[in-house]
Amino acid sequence: MIVYESNRFWVKDMVNFTRSYTMKKIIFGVLLIGSYTGLVCFVYEFYGLESNLHSGIYSLLGVILSILLVFRTNTAYDRWWEGRKQWGALVNNCRNYAIMVESLLPANDKDTRRFFAKHIANFCIALRDHLRDGVKTDALLLLSDEEISELTPKKHKPNHISLWLYKKMTALQKAGVLSEADAINMKIHHNSLLDILGACERIRKTPIPFSYAVHIKLFITVYGIMLPFGMIADFGYHTIGLVMVIFFALLGLELMAEEVEEPFGVDCNDLPTGDIAHNIKNNVFEILMDERPVQEEAKRELYEKIH
Amino acid sequence: MIVYESNRFWVKDMVNFTRSYTMKKIIFGVLLIGSYTGLVCFVYEFYGLESNLHSGIYSLLGVILSILLVFRTNTAYDRWWEGRKQWGALVNNCRNYAIMVESLLPANDKDTRRFFAKHIANFCIALRDHLRDGVKTDALLLLSDEEISELTPKKHKPNHISLWLYKKMTALQKAGVLSEADAINMKIHHNSLLDILGACERIRKTPIPFSYAVHIKLFITVYGIMLPFGMIADFGYHTIGLVMVIFFALLGLELMAEEVEEPFGVDCNDLPTGDIAHNIKNNVFEILMDERPVQEEAKRELYEKIH
Amino acid sequence: MIVYESNRFWVKDMVNFTRSYTMKKIIFGVLLIGSYTGLVCFVYEFYGLESNLHSGIYSLLGVILSILLVFRTNTAYDRWWEGRKQWGALVNNCRNYAIMVESLLPANDKDTRRFFAKHIANFCIALRDHLRDGVKTDALLLLSDEEISELTPKKHKPNHISLWLYKKMTALQKAGVLSEADAINMKIHHNSLLDILGACERIRKTPIPFSYAVHIKLFITVYGIMLPFGMIADFGYHTIGLVMVIFFALLGLELMAEEVEEPFGVDCNDLPTGDIAHNIKNNVFEILMDERPVQEEAKRELYEKIH
Amino acid sequence: MIVYESNRFWVKDMVNFTRSYTMKKIIFGVLLIGSYTGLVCFVYEFYGLESNLHSGIYSLLGVILSILLVFRTNTAYDRWWEGRKQWGALVNNCRNYAIMVESLLPANDKDTRRFFAKHIANFCIALRDHLRDGVKTDALLLLSDEEISELTPKKHKPNHISLWLYKKMTALQKAGVLSEADAINMKIHHNSLLDILGACERIRKTPIPFSYAVHIKLFITVYGIMLPFGMIADFGYHTIGLVMVIFFALLGLELMAEEVEEPFGVDCNDLPTGDIAHNIKNNVFEILMDERPVQEEAKRELYEKIH
Amino acid sequence: MIVYESNRFWVKDMVNFTRSYTMKKIIFGVLLIGSYTGLVCFVYEFYGLESNLHSGIYSLLGVILSILLVFRTNTAYDRWWEGRKQWGALVNNCRNYAIMVESLLPANDKDTRRFFAKHIANFCIALRDHLRDGVKTDALLLLSDEEISELTPKKHKPNHISLWLYKKMTALQKAGVLSEADAINMKIHHNSLLDILGACERIRKTPIPFSYAVHIKLFITVYGIMLPFGMIADFGYHTIGLVMVIFFALLGLELMAEEVEEPFGVDCNDLPTGDIAHNIKNNVFEILMDERPVQEEAKRELYEKIH
Repeated sequence: MIVYESNRFWVKDMVNFTRSYTMKKIIFGVLLIGSYTGLVCFVYEFYGLESNLHSGIYSLLGVILSILLVFRTNTAYDRWWEGRKQWGALVNNCRNYAIMVESLLPANDKDTRRFFAKHIANFCIALRDHLRDGVKTDALLLLSDEEISELTPKKHKPNHISLWLYKKMTALQKAGVLSEADAINMKIHHNSLLDILGACERIRKTPIPFSYAVHIKLFITVYGIMLPFGMIADFGYHTIGLVMVIFFALLGLELMAEEVEEPFGVDCNDLPTGDIAHNIKNNVFEILMDERPVQEEAKRELYEKIH
Repeated sequence: MIVYESNRFWVKDMVNFTRSYTMKKIIFGVLLIGSYTGLVCFVYEFYGLESNLHSGIYSLLGVILSILLVFRTNTAYDRWWEGRKQWGALVNNCRNYAIMVESLLPANDKDTRRFFAKHIANFCIALRDHLRDGVKTDALLLLSDEEISELTPKKHKPNHISLWLYKKMTALQKAGVLSEADAINMKIHHNSLLDILGACERIRKTPIPFSYAVHIKLFITVYGIMLPFGMIADFGYHTIGLVMVIFFALLGLELMAEEVEEPFGVDCNDLPTGDIAHNIKNNVFEILMDERPVQEEAKRELYEKIH
Repeated sequence: MIVYESNRFWVKDMVNFTRSYTMKKIIFGVLLIGSYTGLVCFVYEFYGLESNLHSGIYSLLGVILSILLVFRTNTAYDRWWEGRKQWGALVNNCRNYAIMVESLLPANDKDTRRFFAKHIANFCIALRDHLRDGVKTDALLLLSDEEISELTPKKHKPNHISLWLYKKMTALQKAGVLSEADAINMKIHHNSLLDILGACERIRKTPIPFSYAVHIKLFITVYGIMLPFGMIADFGYHTIGLVMVIFFALLGLELMAEEVEEPFGVDCNDLPTGDIAHNIKNNVFEILMDERPVQEEAKRELYEKIH
Repeated sequence: MIVYESNRFWVKDMVNFTRSYTMKKIIFGVLLIGSYTGLVCFVYEFYGLESNLHSGIYSLLGVILSILLVFRTNTAYDRWWEGRKQWGALVNNCRNYAIMVESLLPANDKDTRRFFAKHIANFCIALRDHLRDGVKTDALLLLSDEEISELTPKKHKPNHISLWLYKKMTALQKAGVLSEADAINMKIHHNSLLDILGACERIRKTPIPFSYAVHIKLFITVYGIMLPFGMIADFGYHTIGLVMVIFFALLGLELMAEEVEEPFGVDCNDLPTGDIAHNIKNNVFEILMDERPVQEEAKRELYEKIH
Repeated sequence: MIVYESNRFWVKDMVNFTRSYTMKKIIFGVLLIGSYTGLVCFVYEFYGLESNLHSGIYSLLGVILSILLVFRTNTAYDRWWEGRKQWGALVNNCRNYAIMVESLLPANDKDTRRFFAKHIANFCIALRDHLRDGVKTDALLLLSDEEISELTPKKHKPNHISLWLYKKMTALQKAGVLSEADAINMKIHHNSLLDILGACERIRKTPIPFSYAVHIKLFITVYGIMLPFGMIADFGYHTIGLVMVIFFALLGLELMAEEVEEPFGVDCNDLPTGDIAHNIKNNVFEILMDERPVQEEAKRELYEKIH
């Protein structure tokens, strides 16, 4: 995610468009279509060709395309926002979990507190990596050697961390530390962990249906190839600029949708899942261990990119 | 589902459009209208006919049609995405269920663990087939002979598997293995199984109302028949290409909507329910039996089709 | 509901449009406006009148109207789909309820099982009729004479069936057959029954606000009256066909919205609530009484209408 | 709310448009703009003025405005419909509550039953008035003198009725009449009462942001002032009719949105909260007191207005 | 938030547009583009330049832009409304919480009541400030010195207040004042506090993706720069007024979206979180302490701004 303030700095935001990789791709696509249009114009001019196409019908196609692209944008943005909601829910859930553990355990049981603090934080870190390129045990916090050797062969590591937490809770329940009501209350947080995980997996693994993806790409491509011919009769060399602006709008919608559709990577519009996992860790340790976090929360620069 | 990466390979995606059966149907429809338009153009040219229709009014009709088709697309896509959400919820639910069972049972009770692992997995497999062409008992895992003879006459097999699971839980509760709180907690997962089943049945059995389906088909057909006459005066033989592009956009929306509306089959845009059921099986067996899955997860090729 | 397969039989679907009563109304309206337009054309032609109106401004009005009608369609369809969801939830709920009862009761208590099977099914049947023209006790199943005489004077019969179920559960709880946890778990299903009932009542009793209904009808009527005058200068006798196509699109959206807005009747686009209630009955009896249903599930014909 | 049947009586609905106060306001606004346009036309005609504005650009503005107004309509309608859902939920909740109380109390405890029947009904009546012009204790049912004197000084009366209900339940729980499970089950209904209240307060107190309200009003006003000038060159005196139709569409959307946005009053499109509260009272008394309601449910006339 | 009544005072609302800071920004932007357009017109006129651009293509761009801006508006408004819903849920939750505490505690335990009243109110106040510029302990109510010294070093203060509440509840549960069922019921309210907090943090910290923000700003800017050239041939000096109206519509949507997107500040369209927190305090103290609030609820002036 790129840090910015949406309702200030109109010009400064625009000037910093290069911070967004996708904006660079869009600009590149726009320059490409501009060159192509320039070539077409030149050829028409040079050979004195005439076109009997006019811009009316392109308006119809443009409107259809933009309606379609807003559908595309809506669904992609919904995934992005749902991803953000899931990570927001993870924050809430981990805080509530930690507060429950802190309140219910006997005041002097530091070890169990550490166990929960450690593994709640580890679940979040594992989730971040599970949604990127796979969990590596050395990214996790404070694992004992036997924990590492137990976790390493598992194919689905976040599942196993969740299992550890659940087993610990069951043991506390059987030992009488937690009452029946506590077990019911705490269960909700266990469930949430895997529900959030599953929702993120779903978003990550399921882009829009292939037919839609191809349909939109074909439509944009054909529209782009045809567009200059329809405008050259009316606008001459101005066609170049107009085609570029139209393409900026339409191609931009498609490329941005492609990016935000899968929001758990490290692209510049992706969610700062690493940052959120880090905050959860700090919150949980503050609640359970009363520890000041070792790494201070960094001050964010404007237009800084955070993962 | 066809495997692809939405924000790379623009050209490669387009070139592989034939992987999508629906795209082939769209292209076929577009060629059909193209031939028809060619015929009309030829007749006009040959007999020197004049048309006093012009393209303005077709723009209005085109805009109305595209607004209508986006409504169509939205509702169809919502079903597809809701179907995906339900199967995602099934994944979460089965994992949580397995973790609960693993934590709450006595460590040495392998049989009950096997029972739950087997029937949770079977429920998912049965659901997959129930939504396709009916459950066959030999697709299910590790059923004993008496289970087969009990299940075979049942009309609604997933119901019965759910009943088995519930009865086993009740027995454990009565035997004192599960506490009251555990019964409350575990009940949630039982409920979810049938809730997910019911939601998928609903999506599968209820397409959009018949009137809407007919209305849209009639509208597209009439629009297609009229379109060449309205453009021929303005565009001559270029009409053929333009009509094809407009039709590609509009017909494509309708045909893709028809396909994704019922997402549990084995079409190329359908959800990979078989694949998801397979993953659930692996997850559940890893948690409950600590078994490495027999079938390794296959590496997916780009543009491979998975069911 | 009319049975059809949305992604096959394009032409067959169109040919069977008469199965839909609403499509017949639309066609009737379209013919009406066509005759009117024909009359106007004839008068203009006959008296050699000239119109200085042209079709541009009608495009604007047409676009506004279609945007408005899609809003109309969305809200109407949402009610229809929510109605379907509620009945889907009823299916899930009744199955889960039956499975709970089956598992928790002592194996030999046939009477209580019959009680629940009977009244769960009766609730669904009563709901179907409550949303149509009122519950008649002789449509209900297996009621004893005293039950009939108790139920008959009640104004709100589904409420009372729900009360019977709840009272039976409370009695079982007090008798110690059901534990506290069971009472909590089973309560959810009782609540759902009335929640679903209430949601269906809400959909049935509250159409869109009167002002919207009148606004749209006035707008369509005025637009229809004005339309021929605006097109006659440009299109001559072709106006008749064009006006009919435009009206088919716009009037169709309104009339279909009016129909699906209240989806619990026996119109051809209404939900097959009778059919669903019948399925629930079969499912519940299979689970609780292990009875093969007396009436076999009928094989559905294509384009058959089911209530 | 005005009683009508949306899919019958097309003409009769239109003729009765005066039942809707908002429709009258719209017609008034349309006549105003019509007179203004007439004046402009007359002045142009009289002085032989020419306008170089044409209707194209007004189409763009009209489309933008209508897109904006549909956004406006959607958000306003969503509030209206959410309000309706909340009151629907209130119905469900009160019925379920009454059924719980009826089943769990000892059969001969008439007093407690009367207490619950009275105060559940009172809560609904108080809610209705709280959302209009404040709760008056004499609108409530069967209050004892001490209840009146306790309630009168409270600023937030529905809160206090909810407190009474909760205290009674707690007392029953402590007296052993209600078990722990019953307390958990019944709590849900208590929560719902205040959740519904809060949601209605939210809808009532928060119209769309002031900037949006002003933006739309300014835009419509400026558009209305400019519109005649842009059409007079093309349409002459026909401008008057066309401007009126366009304004009918656009102004209507805004004025209807303003009305349904706050749906708890006694306007003709507002929800019949009084009627719903009355029905809840009847339902609850039927369940708990087996009393035939004193006031029979009135037969509704078509186009009757109910609050 | 600015107090107004949306369905009265059309003219008065418009006249008071200056109450909205954003409206002033919009007007400023509109005047800027107006001056620029005037300059362009003057230059064209002065040098007798001709433009071969016409307004058709600008219509297409305008429609695309407005579709895009409605997407923008929808997502921004959704955040605003979700923020309002969260604060509404906070109101419900705190009232229910207070009612529970009031009913369950022994009648004479004033201290615990005061504890809950104080800290429920403090949570809301802390939340308000946490979403603005950070919590200051001296804004909180009735904190003892040791509470201040405990709270001050915490990085996340609302978390800690929630922890206090939870610990108090756990102590009451262990002391036998609250039963198991009470613990389950009360837990829901604790969870809600942090869930609401987390949802508000999410809205505050995550504006729409940077690429979208830049894309829209670039598009509006380029469109604004090009617009005069396309209209000058058709409209001459009237271009100035038309460009200003178009810009008013489009720029307005963007600027208002930017403002409402982050609704927890003290801007004029922001939610009155301070006011809501104040009301919660009054409600909670009325329920738990039977105290008349010290500060009377102020009578709101029309167009008054409340935070």
